[in-house]
Amino acid sequence: MIVEVIAVGTELLLGHIVNSNAAVIGSALADSGHDSHYQQVVGDNLSRLKSAIELAMSRSDAVIITGGIGPTQDDLTREALAAATGRDLLFDESYAEHLRQWWASRGREMPRSNLRQAEHPEGAQLIPNPKGTAPGLAMEHRGTWVFCVPGVPEEMEYLLGKEVLPRLSLESGGPSVVASRLLRTWGRSESDIADRLDDLYHGSSNPSIAFLASAGEIKVRITVKAEDQAAAAALIAPVEAVVRDRLGDAVFGVDDETIEKVVISILGEEGMTIGTAESMTGGLVAAALTSVPGASAVVKGALVAYDHELKRTLLGVSDTSRVVDAQTAEEMARGGRDFLDADVVVAVTGSAGPEPLEEPPGTVVIAVATPEEIRSRRLRLPGDRERVRAYSVTAALHLTRLAVVGSWWSE
Amino acid sequence: MIVEVIAVGTELLLGHIVNSNAAVIGSALADSGHDSHYQQVVGDNLSRLKSAIELAMSRSDAVIITGGIGPTQDDLTREALAAATGRDLLFDESYAEHLRQWWASRGREMPRSNLRQAEHPEGAQLIPNPKGTAPGLAMEHRGTWVFCVPGVPEEMEYLLGKEVLPRLSLESGGPSVVASRLLRTWGRSESDIADRLDDLYHGSSNPSIAFLASAGEIKVRITVKAEDQAAAAALIAPVEAVVRDRLGDAVFGVDDETIEKVVISILGEEGMTIGTAESMTGGLVAAALTSVPGASAVVKGALVAYDHELKRTLLGVSDTSRVVDAQTAEEMARGGRDFLDADVVVAVTGSAGPEPLEEPPGTVVIAVATPEEIRSRRLRLPGDRERVRAYSVTAALHLTRLAVVGSWWSE
Repeated sequence: MIVEVIAVGTELLLGHIVNSNAAVIGSALADSGHDSHYQQVVGDNLSRLKSAIELAMSRSDAVIITGGIGPTQDDLTREALAAATGRDLLFDESYAEHLRQWWASRGREMPRSNLRQAEHPEGAQLIPNPKGTAPGLAMEHRGTWVFCVPGVPEEMEYLLGKEVLPRLSLESGGPSVVASRLLRTWGRSESDIADRLDDLYHGSSNPSIAFLASAGEIKVRITVKAEDQAAAAALIAPVEAVVRDRLGDAVFGVDDETIEKVVISILGEEGMTIGTAESMTGGLVAAALTSVPGASAVVKGALVAYDHELKRTLLGVSDTSRVVDAQTAEEMARGGRDFLDADVVVAVTGSAGPEPLEEPPGTVVIAVATPEEIRSRRLRLPGDRERVRAYSVTAALHLTRLAVVGSWWSE
Repeated sequence: MIVEVIAVGTELLLGHIVNSNAAVIGSALADSGHDSHYQQVVGDNLSRLKSAIELAMSRSDAVIITGGIGPTQDDLTREALAAATGRDLLFDESYAEHLRQWWASRGREMPRSNLRQAEHPEGAQLIPNPKGTAPGLAMEHRGTWVFCVPGVPEEMEYLLGKEVLPRLSLESGGPSVVASRLLRTWGRSESDIADRLDDLYHGSSNPSIAFLASAGEIKVRITVKAEDQAAAAALIAPVEAVVRDRLGDAVFGVDDETIEKVVISILGEEGMTIGTAESMTGGLVAAALTSVPGASAVVKGALVAYDHELKRTLLGVSDTSRVVDAQTAEEMARGGRDFLDADVVVAVTGSAGPEPLEEPPGTVVIAVATPEEIRSRRLRLPGDRERVRAYSVTAALHLTRLAVVGSWWSE
């Protein structure tokens, strides 16, 4: 189906907020196999909102309107939809009662304006919204479906996934579940991964696979449409097995497993502790590790030595004049391991820019000390100071994982 | 003027990227006194892009099209604009020569497809784009102005500010310069600041003032429309003086001066050095300080003690069982100062969540040791683990500034 998104709100036109809802809905529609030719943004104005709805209904099979269904006077989506379809605006007494109870259960009196949320164009169905008080709406008018969902992202996403996409799927006669699995990788280029998975990429549209690159990591997304969740999982499993077989140790996690979560989890299972010894990254590696809830059972601490003298006194670096250097990095890791009394210490040193420091900005050396050994690796990272530091953190965490699981690669 | 924004690109419809360009343009238009009734997003499709342009020209005084002017086959804005206005597509030989030289100066041969960027509808003016190779376009058609700018945010913003807004201002008979000055504050609530500046807020629309809150900081923006930059500066100066007088030490910087830049700059001028002693923030304060280019002249290093035993051995904390505690924070600052041999050390300890740690998540104690004294302050910060950590970093840097400039406030 061709589905059009209308985002409602003057704050979008003024640029006070970015229209992330349209991107979320667009992405979900594409994943579900629907097309989208246009998006519109319109302010809180009845006649312009009516025009926008009329236009969308004239050229698309379905319309999703996000925003403008709250309780205040500038929430005009209900009125505009009634006007655009020539229907009366009715009042749903049972939903009004639901609203009164919602407020009463919180020990508060309902502001009268909230009753607007019980209004709906004749023939529209109210969709309960457990995340808030504004119900969604679904109605068909001359063969075109219109869905109204809140503008609050959390409420919008809930109703989109729970109500709108399944109804669209039913209407388009398609499967009722779209599921996906994200395999997270590091250490192989996007083109290398694409080459290795070329037959899968071209071989099937269900499951389909896609590649996403961000911050030095490449994600492989397997998406499937199926009758139900069990069927979806059964279709994904063999493809995931092939991808894992071909990419090997490069796959470090799935779905929302970030590398810092994975490192904390692996070390926690092994009963091991970790620390960091940083110069160029200035504490960012430690900050990433401690961002994981429960990190305190695993993370001992960190030494950040920006000053040359501190590198010698704190970390035992023998030649502090050499910054972008394997020996310096390895001494930092060893010194940190001793000083922090941690099982594993990752050390980062290098040239972040903007000024060159021995080497061009982006030249970084990372060392990892485990109880068994100390290894280092030199990297050339792209971008400005901020990106070089961010990519260095990612690389440091990945090399830590590889060192701990015994899969350290030679350069 | 009523100005409509059209963002072009199938990747926007698919939600691969969020339409931040529309928000940036919308905000700039509002700041310049223009209205905006609609925004559109359309994919890389000639007939649909043509329809979108026709629609926008039929209902708005000016149209800004962002995207679709690159060199590849799916860049269709030039063709669509020619079709929508019934004009021929011409080829600009002098711009083609400029493109050839651009590539030659980089020692590379120009791909033939790049010549598309020298095409333009008859009557359109090419606007040079020093940030890239795709020139912008400006044309008037039956009283409506149309501007085409790149989709790359950096290039779009440059041409918007340098070319599009001044031309719109000229067309609308308004002043030709819109300038603004951002005063950054910390330590006073938004409502306190609004109260103190209430007469300025209601007293004048030129200069106008606005309040923006983010990450615990409140920014006061003074915006002025004037004939030229000198006139704008002359109008802003007296308002800025009044704001500074009323807000005092809360104003810590202007425009793009972040608190980490300000701290590094103040310490650098004084010839002083700094370090951090962190538990809850896990290295984030040090990371913020070292994000500033040139920080190495000022930042000595950091000690992150997540482990209780390390707090004792590394920092000399006497009672490591007390985490959210002024004495602990002050001992951390003192111990860090001795250990790192820095003039100033800021220490952060507290409960970030999600589990309570002695006190509810968000309870944080920050101490600052200067050569003269050590002071601490307890804060209650809102939000989840990530927000609590981020707000703690901001607070730690601000308290460092106040301690160094001798303006420490009592709680």
